[in-house]
Amino acid sequence: MKLATLKDGTRDGQLAVVSRDLKSAHLADGIALTMQRALDDWNFIAPQLDELYQQLNAGRAPRAFDFDPKRCMAPLPRAYQWADGSAYVNHVELVRRARDAEMPESFWHDPLMYQGGGDDFIGPTDDIVLGSEEWGIDFEGEVAVITDDVPMGTPAQQALAHIKLLMLVNDVSLRNLIPAELAKGFGFFQSKPASSFSPVAVTPDELGDAWQEGKVHLPLRATWNGALVGQPNAGVDMVFSFPQLIAHLARTRNARAGSIIGSGTVSNKDSKKGYTCIAEKRCLEMIEGGEPKTPFMKFGDTIRIEMLDANGKSIFGAINQQVAQPGAARPQA
Amino acid sequence: MKLATLKDGTRDGQLAVVSRDLKSAHLADGIALTMQRALDDWNFIAPQLDELYQQLNAGRAPRAFDFDPKRCMAPLPRAYQWADGSAYVNHVELVRRARDAEMPESFWHDPLMYQGGGDDFIGPTDDIVLGSEEWGIDFEGEVAVITDDVPMGTPAQQALAHIKLLMLVNDVSLRNLIPAELAKGFGFFQSKPASSFSPVAVTPDELGDAWQEGKVHLPLRATWNGALVGQPNAGVDMVFSFPQLIAHLARTRNARAGSIIGSGTVSNKDSKKGYTCIAEKRCLEMIEGGEPKTPFMKFGDTIRIEMLDANGKSIFGAINQQVAQPGAARPQA
Repeated sequence: MKLATLKDGTRDGQLAVVSRDLKSAHLADGIALTMQRALDDWNFIAPQLDELYQQLNAGRAPRAFDFDPKRCMAPLPRAYQWADGSAYVNHVELVRRARDAEMPESFWHDPLMYQGGGDDFIGPTDDIVLGSEEWGIDFEGEVAVITDDVPMGTPAQQALAHIKLLMLVNDVSLRNLIPAELAKGFGFFQSKPASSFSPVAVTPDELGDAWQEGKVHLPLRATWNGALVGQPNAGVDMVFSFPQLIAHLARTRNARAGSIIGSGTVSNKDSKKGYTCIAEKRCLEMIEGGEPKTPFMKFGDTIRIEMLDANGKSIFGAINQQVAQPGAARPQA
Repeated sequence: MKLATLKDGTRDGQLAVVSRDLKSAHLADGIALTMQRALDDWNFIAPQLDELYQQLNAGRAPRAFDFDPKRCMAPLPRAYQWADGSAYVNHVELVRRARDAEMPESFWHDPLMYQGGGDDFIGPTDDIVLGSEEWGIDFEGEVAVITDDVPMGTPAQQALAHIKLLMLVNDVSLRNLIPAELAKGFGFFQSKPASSFSPVAVTPDELGDAWQEGKVHLPLRATWNGALVGQPNAGVDMVFSFPQLIAHLARTRNARAGSIIGSGTVSNKDSKKGYTCIAEKRCLEMIEGGEPKTPFMKFGDTIRIEMLDANGKSIFGAINQQVAQPGAARPQA
């Protein structure tokens, strides 16, 4: 099943079911008005949405219309929890090596995770509005899951069943603000502005064989200003699976329905797979040549993040955005 | 105006107006079903709630009933943003001194702030359920504000007007998990489990003269196992006002309606005022005698956090909780 949230002038938008080929959609208004409401009562709501999805795929849905990603908000336009892991430890190691710092061995078995702000997500084709290029604007291509209620203390073996939906993320990062912010000891804050999500969220079964052991075994494609810069496989070098990340999250507290957990920047040890964030490219340049060469994003730059199935079909639709100055504000819902 | 959210079996509870003396309440069901909905459209909703509040105070509300804090969820039972500052820099300096670390001078003019999880807040009298005493269970008495929409880049001078409500917080902390977690560099996560909030949230005008320059000039009282252990004045030694904290939050992103911003543990330089978190007491013991003596909380311990006005009347009602083991789960909404 594929779900999207359409702009309708409200903060939470309107839940819609989207056909498998991403060509048509149908409002879910007779079932659940918003994505959060569907997640709040998933076991009751999801079968009804799925029935509509089957009708839509069969061309039998009564009020189907063309699906347009430009009309999409983030599938969950605001979330009560956005927790982002850093499961591709290779990426973390590279960043450390670039600044001649050793990575603690514990990073291979104790996940890194930060708490993000979930109040103001960006739609898949809306502008990334930021105050200054000097902040070091970067994209981060990631996969994320949405859970139902996860009780405190849920072990990884039981966490898989709590994954209800998957999405792609652009975890926009402000690289030049990170060193000073992390030095303060309280983690990211200003350096992690609003994140963007793919047009649709999909149930795990949509991934078929590519969904194995809580990982998505498909390349994540990052295209920057029209050039494909990375296509690392999200199932390779993911040291912590989503169930492991969820167990980390829920060790000391409940995670409630609608919690979003991100994978961290997808990164393969095989550097020929390219990069899904500029910082990683710059780290490789540092290690090879002593200094970074690739600049961060400028106003007007575009970034496209997408995942194709084995047949080359887009699964989630594309995050396809432009970086913009304030005033060139992103379209209102 | 004073507002509470009553348990009704739903995730968001039911919005109610509470009389100034905290003795009676009235459902706001004809106005806004939930606190988030009121905040989403505050300019339209607040005057209607205020009219009901005036009627309730005058004894003219048609369906008033006795107000019972035990029926309360957190005023905002789940929030799209919970960002906690550390505005009482004295507290930070003490913690550093206790471990012989110098505090960077920048901490006096650049606020510390961490992003917390907002998906599972604890009601004012519900149990604090945690898996292990070994985690080093501590309370933190704080003041917090709730904002409407704050656009990215809002300066402190303009942030005051975005403060719509105030509450008290118990920012439960797991001290023994903090050192390892902060050493990883990504900030708090498992060490900051679910937070608790006071029975009611109040509009700033309820504070009268005690609300000055975005600070609350009244003592915050912390009572641990029946003994008053602290009553520092929240308006004294607060280095960053709430408008300054909000400006810090909104520097690189919008903060949307219903964002909760905390003050950090209230702490006065005058140690005779006592403490609102055990960690601070232990730091003083370290500095004085070389080792901490006061243990952290045990299962069964109680903590009461309250603020009285100049006439000794409770403003927000009391956070009044017990620490409990899983299984002794807190009452369901």
